[in-house]
Amino acid sequence: MQMAQNGPASEQVRVACIQMEPKVGENAANLARSLELCEEAVRGGAQLLVLPELCNSGYVFETRGEAQAAAEEIPTGAASSSWIAFCRERGVYLVAGICERAGEQLFNSSIVIGPDGYIGTFRKVHLWNRENLFFEPGDLGFPVFHTAIGRIATFICYDGWFPEAYRACALRGADIICIPTNWVPIPGQAEGSPAMATVLAQANAHSNSVYIAAADRVGTERGQPFNGQSVIVSYTGWPLAGPASPDDEEILYADLDLGMARVARNWNDFNPAVA
Amino acid sequence: MQMAQNGPASEQVRVACIQMEPKVGENAANLARSLELCEEAVRGGAQLLVLPELCNSGYVFETRGEAQAAAEEIPTGAASSSWIAFCRERGVYLVAGICERAGEQLFNSSIVIGPDGYIGTFRKVHLWNRENLFFEPGDLGFPVFHTAIGRIATFICYDGWFPEAYRACALRGADIICIPTNWVPIPGQAEGSPAMATVLAQANAHSNSVYIAAADRVGTERGQPFNGQSVIVSYTGWPLAGPASPDDEEILYADLDLGMARVARNWNDFNPAVA
Repeated sequence: MQMAQNGPASEQVRVACIQMEPKVGENAANLARSLELCEEAVRGGAQLLVLPELCNSGYVFETRGEAQAAAEEIPTGAASSSWIAFCRERGVYLVAGICERAGEQLFNSSIVIGPDGYIGTFRKVHLWNRENLFFEPGDLGFPVFHTAIGRIATFICYDGWFPEAYRACALRGADIICIPTNWVPIPGQAEGSPAMATVLAQANAHSNSVYIAAADRVGTERGQPFNGQSVIVSYTGWPLAGPASPDDEEILYADLDLGMARVARNWNDFNPAVA
Repeated sequence: MQMAQNGPASEQVRVACIQMEPKVGENAANLARSLELCEEAVRGGAQLLVLPELCNSGYVFETRGEAQAAAEEIPTGAASSSWIAFCRERGVYLVAGICERAGEQLFNSSIVIGPDGYIGTFRKVHLWNRENLFFEPGDLGFPVFHTAIGRIATFICYDGWFPEAYRACALRGADIICIPTNWVPIPGQAEGSPAMATVLAQANAHSNSVYIAAADRVGTERGQPFNGQSVIVSYTGWPLAGPASPDDEEILYADLDLGMARVARNWNDFNPAVA
């Protein structure tokens, strides 16, 4: 790999993946806890914060009615408006998994917010298991948001099992993919070997030359255990922070030079990273 | 993951990845060594054998003339015809990396042979570094060969850096992707962490539900070190054998039930592995 002639890009962004434990049916408590942890991350210097999938609502719904009750409109609902106020006050960016209601439809969404307020929404494309009973598949594609700190893409959990998701973001110029997630165990993992979620993040960061910041939840909800092990991966494919604890709330930090994902990563004189 | 209701597929195929050290300019010795190791693999019960990239010729050419001199026509050249005779005699399948000449053109190819002789050829699509000076990019796409033991796809080394290569094979029904390779070190690997080649094989086997058998070379040629660490990965994404030694010739074995890559791998009642 020959990077030297390109010179480094110049600006560091401190990213925080906030691993937390939302609880289904406790929207107000989930929102309060998310704000506490965001506050802690900002004290830790974070400029771009990532929260887990469905962190306003919890995950394991039993009925459509329960999901409906936990959902909110973007950007006017309780969690959206609180997070927007927080980002305005603290001058930071936030990507958070949110249970979204849009008229009669529910989406498993990711909201992107900046110091000037609401930026945009991604809606999970690949619904996992019983999510199919509650949510509509995402209808917004794989957007890349051009912000003052860099080009931010976001998708959610099982979307990351599809190489096309990373590819779509990278080809549209993403510097970083922020992944709110609720990973569940994959059978067959050998003691001491990396989780498949880590393997997927590394492989796809490497093949696409894009940073990845994945914030997972922890805990067990209605019998469903979640993995934790949030991770921040360099555009090189090597982990920069984490995997975090499999069990505990935790904030992972890494200082990323997002411009490096744009520098032509010439593996040699003939081969750029993506083409 | 719920697999039980599908029942297992029924036939085991013993696959051998033959990690060897070809030497540039020594075609006759390389062929002889490959046949010795193939003989050993057959004694070990292997029915499908995989040899490294350019194993008839060595890798680090200095001139086009040198590459031209080391290349042969498929299936009539010295290595092709010896391997074909071997497969006929022993009743086995072989996938081997070969320096191919076709008229004025050279290709970095993979030959597929069975008990009845020559089956087909793949030509490396994504040429790495100075390969671009000697070889034409592959013009045969990503073929899948339907054989009596299963559907065999093959691509070579750097092709595996492109998620589309695995996807193309999987969507055309491949049970196994045999990867002759000459992996080189990737900067930044932490002590004790898996090689990026292993990470890529795991992630792409998992996302595509396809077996992967990657046979690497070892040794240092004209200053270029190679990685070894051949690996056989299940359609689940978890390794079945290897990674092999980084330095020594070695034969990896695994008994694969290739039909399992065809069984609808329903991760749950809603999600098949690929779609």
